[in-house]
Amino acid sequence: MYFITGNKGKFEEVKSILGNVEQLEMDLPEIQSIDAHDIIKAKLLEAKKHGKGEYIVEDTSLYMDCLNGLPGPLIKWFLKTIGNEGLYKIADKMGDYGAEARTIVGYSSGEEIRFFEGSVKGKITEPRGTGFGWDPIFRPEGFEKTFGEMTKEEKNGISMRRKALNKLKEFIG
Amino acid sequence: MYFITGNKGKFEEVKSILGNVEQLEMDLPEIQSIDAHDIIKAKLLEAKKHGKGEYIVEDTSLYMDCLNGLPGPLIKWFLKTIGNEGLYKIADKMGDYGAEARTIVGYSSGEEIRFFEGSVKGKITEPRGTGFGWDPIFRPEGFEKTFGEMTKEEKNGISMRRKALNKLKEFIG
Repeated sequence: MYFITGNKGKFEEVKSILGNVEQLEMDLPEIQSIDAHDIIKAKLLEAKKHGKGEYIVEDTSLYMDCLNGLPGPLIKWFLKTIGNEGLYKIADKMGDYGAEARTIVGYSSGEEIRFFEGSVKGKITEPRGTGFGWDPIFRPEGFEKTFGEMTKEEKNGISMRRKALNKLKEFIG
Repeated sequence: MYFITGNKGKFEEVKSILGNVEQLEMDLPEIQSIDAHDIIKAKLLEAKKHGKGEYIVEDTSLYMDCLNGLPGPLIKWFLKTIGNEGLYKIADKMGDYGAEARTIVGYSSGEEIRFFEGSVKGKITEPRGTGFGWDPIFRPEGFEKTFGEMTKEEKNGISMRRKALNKLKEFIG
């Protein structure tokens, strides 16, 4: 079973949950979509061209209520242009801080692709702390800290990725 | 010479300027980027796999000052989620209505790809009129009407696409 990612941290989390999995670095094209399912599906179909096997691809993105779900999988382009400061400014000006951190995991073992989802609701805040990507502006519901202010252990404890992977683990059995 | 598009209106405009050009409908994957050059380049490389020839691909997008250049080539996803109303609301809440309508034309005749650009500055307004995509919220500088309120002739008269195509025409000679 291969988890396709260039991100060592993500791989470690996946391995800690699924156990029997190997990291596979593969430069897969990312199609344009706001539906993570489409992006993952395209990647899995491309990955399968390289050989038979079980492949896992995931997408973890930030969905803002005031933007009707944007940026979603387009988050990296928002970070490149307006950054966390800009994302916070939009939520603040729009007067709606609601957001969701959502992981979609796609699993392909042959013909079929199955998807598993995990999400965490929260609020967009002024950037606080460090961490990856939009971590500093996302404060999960029921917590005072943003993802950017949490330790790796704290963050993994409420991880949307873990929720999605647990569902995949149950499916694989 | 082939202009790759599924849009008859765009093709008519291109033909009226370049003359000797045929429409080619080809379902090319659109990679994720905020740089239209990257998207066009990927399409031209894909198109060339189908046979030798001269290919033209264009991208016309809306770049908003208050979003530091977004949505750019990601405009279609903004329209799908928040629509013209949402784009106007962002500009209004941010207090910055500046925008640019920009066409990038990519031309490939063999190994090399050349790019030609045309742009029109303007303002984001409340949606007025009809027309394609973001036409109703873009009012070009020096005009009272939005693109959505203009006739085809009025719009073509100040077209960023025409500006880019004229440069290509000059290059081809």
